[in-house]
Amino acid sequence: MKKYLIEDAWCIIEDGFHPEFQEVSESIFSLGNGRFGGRGNFEEGYSGKTLPGAYFAGVYYPDVTRVGWWKNGYPEYFAKVLNGVHWIGLEIKIDGEKLDLATTPCTHFRRTLDMQQGLLQRSFEISPASGGTLSFAFERFCSMADPDVACIELRINSTGFTGRLEVTPFLDFDVHNRDANYGDQFWIAAKTSQDETHAMVSSKTKKTNFTVSSFMHTATTLNDHISIPSTGKRESKKVSNHFEAEIQDGSSLRCRKLVVNLNSLYVADADQPSEGKRKLSEVVQKGYDEIKREHIEAWKDIWDTADIQITGDLPAQQGIRFNIFQLWQTYTGKDARLNIGPKGFTGEKYGGSTYWDTEAYCIPFYLSTGDAGVARNLLVYRYLHLPKAIENASKLGFSDGAALYPMVTMNGEECHNEWEITFEEIHRNGAMVYAIYDYIRYTGDTSYLLEGGLEVMISICRFWKQRVNYSRDKNAWVMLGVTGPNEYENNVNNNWYTNYIARWCWQYTIEQIKWAAENHPVEWETIQEKLNYQDGESDDWRERIKGIYLPFDETRSVYLQQDGFLDKELQPVKALPSSDLPLNQKWSWDRILRSCYIKQADVLQGMYFFEDHFEADTVRRHFEFYEPMTVHESSLSPCVHAILASRLGMKDKATEMYHRTARLDLDDYNNDTEDGLHITSMAGTWMSVVRGFAGLRVIRDELHFEPSIPDEWDGLAFTVHFRGRIMKIAITKDECEVVLRSGSAIPVFVRGERRELNIE
Amino acid sequence: MKKYLIEDAWCIIEDGFHPEFQEVSESIFSLGNGRFGGRGNFEEGYSGKTLPGAYFAGVYYPDVTRVGWWKNGYPEYFAKVLNGVHWIGLEIKIDGEKLDLATTPCTHFRRTLDMQQGLLQRSFEISPASGGTLSFAFERFCSMADPDVACIELRINSTGFTGRLEVTPFLDFDVHNRDANYGDQFWIAAKTSQDETHAMVSSKTKKTNFTVSSFMHTATTLNDHISIPSTGKRESKKVSNHFEAEIQDGSSLRCRKLVVNLNSLYVADADQPSEGKRKLSEVVQKGYDEIKREHIEAWKDIWDTADIQITGDLPAQQGIRFNIFQLWQTYTGKDARLNIGPKGFTGEKYGGSTYWDTEAYCIPFYLSTGDAGVARNLLVYRYLHLPKAIENASKLGFSDGAALYPMVTMNGEECHNEWEITFEEIHRNGAMVYAIYDYIRYTGDTSYLLEGGLEVMISICRFWKQRVNYSRDKNAWVMLGVTGPNEYENNVNNNWYTNYIARWCWQYTIEQIKWAAENHPVEWETIQEKLNYQDGESDDWRERIKGIYLPFDETRSVYLQQDGFLDKELQPVKALPSSDLPLNQKWSWDRILRSCYIKQADVLQGMYFFEDHFEADTVRRHFEFYEPMTVHESSLSPCVHAILASRLGMKDKATEMYHRTARLDLDDYNNDTEDGLHITSMAGTWMSVVRGFAGLRVIRDELHFEPSIPDEWDGLAFTVHFRGRIMKIAITKDECEVVLRSGSAIPVFVRGERRELNIE
Repeated sequence: MKKYLIEDAWCIIEDGFHPEFQEVSESIFSLGNGRFGGRGNFEEGYSGKTLPGAYFAGVYYPDVTRVGWWKNGYPEYFAKVLNGVHWIGLEIKIDGEKLDLATTPCTHFRRTLDMQQGLLQRSFEISPASGGTLSFAFERFCSMADPDVACIELRINSTGFTGRLEVTPFLDFDVHNRDANYGDQFWIAAKTSQDETHAMVSSKTKKTNFTVSSFMHTATTLNDHISIPSTGKRESKKVSNHFEAEIQDGSSLRCRKLVVNLNSLYVADADQPSEGKRKLSEVVQKGYDEIKREHIEAWKDIWDTADIQITGDLPAQQGIRFNIFQLWQTYTGKDARLNIGPKGFTGEKYGGSTYWDTEAYCIPFYLSTGDAGVARNLLVYRYLHLPKAIENASKLGFSDGAALYPMVTMNGEECHNEWEITFEEIHRNGAMVYAIYDYIRYTGDTSYLLEGGLEVMISICRFWKQRVNYSRDKNAWVMLGVTGPNEYENNVNNNWYTNYIARWCWQYTIEQIKWAAENHPVEWETIQEKLNYQDGESDDWRERIKGIYLPFDETRSVYLQQDGFLDKELQPVKALPSSDLPLNQKWSWDRILRSCYIKQADVLQGMYFFEDHFEADTVRRHFEFYEPMTVHESSLSPCVHAILASRLGMKDKATEMYHRTARLDLDDYNNDTEDGLHITSMAGTWMSVVRGFAGLRVIRDELHFEPSIPDEWDGLAFTVHFRGRIMKIAITKDECEVVLRSGSAIPVFVRGERRELNIE
Repeated sequence: MKKYLIEDAWCIIEDGFHPEFQEVSESIFSLGNGRFGGRGNFEEGYSGKTLPGAYFAGVYYPDVTRVGWWKNGYPEYFAKVLNGVHWIGLEIKIDGEKLDLATTPCTHFRRTLDMQQGLLQRSFEISPASGGTLSFAFERFCSMADPDVACIELRINSTGFTGRLEVTPFLDFDVHNRDANYGDQFWIAAKTSQDETHAMVSSKTKKTNFTVSSFMHTATTLNDHISIPSTGKRESKKVSNHFEAEIQDGSSLRCRKLVVNLNSLYVADADQPSEGKRKLSEVVQKGYDEIKREHIEAWKDIWDTADIQITGDLPAQQGIRFNIFQLWQTYTGKDARLNIGPKGFTGEKYGGSTYWDTEAYCIPFYLSTGDAGVARNLLVYRYLHLPKAIENASKLGFSDGAALYPMVTMNGEECHNEWEITFEEIHRNGAMVYAIYDYIRYTGDTSYLLEGGLEVMISICRFWKQRVNYSRDKNAWVMLGVTGPNEYENNVNNNWYTNYIARWCWQYTIEQIKWAAENHPVEWETIQEKLNYQDGESDDWRERIKGIYLPFDETRSVYLQQDGFLDKELQPVKALPSSDLPLNQKWSWDRILRSCYIKQADVLQGMYFFEDHFEADTVRRHFEFYEPMTVHESSLSPCVHAILASRLGMKDKATEMYHRTARLDLDDYNNDTEDGLHITSMAGTWMSVVRGFAGLRVIRDELHFEPSIPDEWDGLAFTVHFRGRIMKIAITKDECEVVLRSGSAIPVFVRGERRELNIE
């Protein structure tokens, strides 16, 4: 837990330099624009503790899997998020001495992430040995208006200083990943080029052959009007432009670096040099100020429908905006080949891009805060990976077109290697279908079912069919050897959540097949042929729907997380000495496993997903049974509890749960922000607010709100997209006003009461 | 499966060179003397596929643990069996050309492992380019009479060849482990020394600071009487003596290399140079022939009580002698710091030295084939590790002196890192107590109880006490999250075997405490004080003895391997297509886990250990339930089934099971002999014969036999130690003769009938 940042509604501010938290700050001050981004590293370099990170969405490296004991079925490769070209570099020398805040004392340090405008600004002063003061001001952004472009501006002002200043903007491809197995580099030898109009460095990844090229144009002026000539320099992996000036008291120096980053997902390898130069000249033409204006405008558009206003609670206001800002930086929904990595552009940890977090937590966020195309692209992403999911299942012994989506993936191939997760945490397959359901009920757009959805759903149903077996002992279909969302249980039998969602997948798919057959017989026939789908298949599903085993305790009238759960010593988390927490740091793994303690919502995750299947009393009973045993050691856990607690009128519990993730990274709650931000769990926090405190639900195709905001808040306001409309919701302790901002008339329900909406 | 070796009662013979199986042969032709040993590498070097291996008992390297995903509690280091000084080296040049059987064609190749005399011999002929023939004959042994000493003799005869021969015996410490994490060497820079009387190379292990020094004296003679002078050469890690001679048709050259290998377990680092030289001069004094004579004599003594004679089945005869030979080469019972590594001196795979194999399989072998001191040293080994076992348990959250013995260890510290094994395959603790019980009932020597046994037992009982918890649901004590001997089930609840042996540990310990308190009150008080043992402790144990849960199926009247076993699809192995076997190569891990298939005896392991607790009918019912589902993919599995099948009169099944391991390595049954021999499972094969076909049992302190030999055998004869006596048993289809060879009169029981023994 750290509290060194200043609370502000729109900005994240570090006032005074905190070198001890530098890697944390690097994570927090990350920038991105959906296509590329990186950590808040210092432009001028930093010899202290730092994790350099510049990442390009979709550009990864399949490193060799490293395990102690190989298990059959493990993937050979593990896709790693790749640290790429260091494009922010801007070396500074004062009288020949390199500026380095690890060794050069500075004053008036302030760095600000202006989330409204998407700008990272940093200023500080130093006192050179020769006297006087130099003040520095950096500004940086990754353009949201043009995802190839980034800009950096540096201003240096002298007060009483006379001497030589050198600034050397550069591009450098001599980069490493911290998590490289053997310290090796993942890029093959770079190419550089340079002339008066540009400097370029380009490199290709080993194995995957992704090419990334970075281009820069730099201009430095003295006192805002005297242009300083530069000297170019090319090295094997680096290009730079060197500027030198003698300055005096009152002089200022301004250096602007305009960057174009291309990668081979968008521009073919061979075309990058020409396209980069073309683009760069266009950018130079446009100029820093105009690029910045367009960038700010683009952020304005995002905030217009994504913002949440919380009044009466500044930390909460700052926290939620930080989450929204980071989520939209990470994923803008324009490319179905991309997804939301757990650390986005803020770190390399966990590798891979996509977890089930996307389906369970991020899709609801993008459904409400963006237009339907954004979430749909996330569905299409999985459709594009369907052949790989079928291949993945077949590696594990499944046949007949059964699909198992990977636990972690970049290109559709599994790249995780813990048997209890990789092979057994198969509930993720259910989330794929749930996301389709969620998308359709939210947007009303059924077209995706015919354009990929049904294929995904049927392939998943085939997996579930083969994954259960008939237990003569139980006289029921059972699912053995799984790991549920609660990863503090491994290789259990009949995890309630997994069995339940498997059953639901069959049910929902049967319904949608019926819908397709009735309403779109031609398209359905094409799908049937493509999948070699036989009518008898759903009979097998129906048999399993009827007979699947759901562990239940008659005494308590609760569904059991898995077989044998009641054999555990059941005691609440509060019975533990606080020195035992967090369990994942204090207890050995076997002790965690045999304890009753729950890492992350499991039965409750199911009751959240399928809320309309359960009476409030049933949910309450389960909440009261499971929540006290839940340690929430996954940042994805509290939001589900916050939403359920809100529904159950347990406002204090809802608020408590909300607080556990609201400022997870800003306050470095788990002491791990230095590795990068918890991007996907930010969507969970958003859900706590919108689905929790505002109680947003889609029930029978209509939008409902059950508002109940925390006591310390005066008001909550936000905007949502829903079925082609945009509406604004303003909640106070007593009121809930919903206004239609665009789209045709539609009713909503507030606390069950139907309202026709006023148009803004 | 390979059948390239010649069947012979006492020898393993490769007739004609099989370079395609060279690494297999290197394993099979391994030599050792309990203190050091190594693979059957060629003295002259070999540029083809080869795994060089020279190992020193107790000398290991703790390499950094390598896992994909770290779990709390994993050990930081993994003790690796270390490839050490290459002391067999003897380079040969013919007219300046290096002899290398990978490139030099040879004829009349024959290599023989003479198990009776402990000699490795190899001969072949080559035809040099300059004409004529050279015949080569090597002989090598590691002295069983003096464990510091090894000898090599090379004879070269010329028929029609005239030219220059060079022989260069050397010692080389530039060695690697194949399983080094990053290809690094585990030895720090070597020292060498050399003068007319000796050559030496010495090196120290990184981290562990073990020193190994190898000394050699070499002599080469022409035509058996002309001594050839040598030229010494020292390099940084290597010393050699070079001999050169011009020879003619009919000439012969003989080179003898006498080696002394010292290591710091026996001679302090600083004393090794002087002690090595002293020892070497003693050895030189004695001479090759005398050393060899003493060595053969020592083997004669071992065979005198360890041999098994099988008549009418030559492959079986050869197989069982190979097993006995390898076991005695690996461990001679003279040093309680040593143990039986799963690969002995024949390979580096699996690292570590000691598994529960020692207690479950090897102790019975050494109890019968050696004097009581041998097995006792294996018990003392664990007593010496008790403090580490307590430390190990405390790392996992256990307290109050509870001990958990490691799954794999070299020095008492755990060095395995699969959570489902390391933390959960805790039944190994039961085997530690069982071995004490087994030792006492076999030898009648109770003194070990007071000299370590009770301390081990009480510490283990304390572990079991804390490892169970009370299930209100079952109204019983349960043990959650374990892996039984059947490692094809992980993290299960209430593994019958583990629960059963835990209960037995408490029962047996309570009995032995009572015995000690009554018979040795003074010693018992000392132990109590040392362990801070309170009388109330055993009350907790008693409560658990009474209430421990043992899963049972009323319908079939069988104990269930674990909770939920009946939920599986129960079908016999023979229902699988043979292309699915072995499962561990063909199926993904999750599929194996959720199947009913059993890797290794589990419930039956318990019924074998505690045979006298179960009626034959009960055992038969369990055998018939479990054995058909058992794939025996551990080489330790079949012997237990062979023994039980013999008891149940299922002679064909017993024979089938016996055949699965009898020639496991000689015929390379599992295609993995190249990694090294399955040393510990060799003890299992021995058990199949002696405890299976001969039906040897100790019942109420008396020795029983229930002989029933395979149909294809004419007779079976062997010798056993028992309670200070040595007796010889000779079994034919109809008869069973037992003769007392030494010791006082004692009755034995043959098929339940009491016999007074004739004295030989």
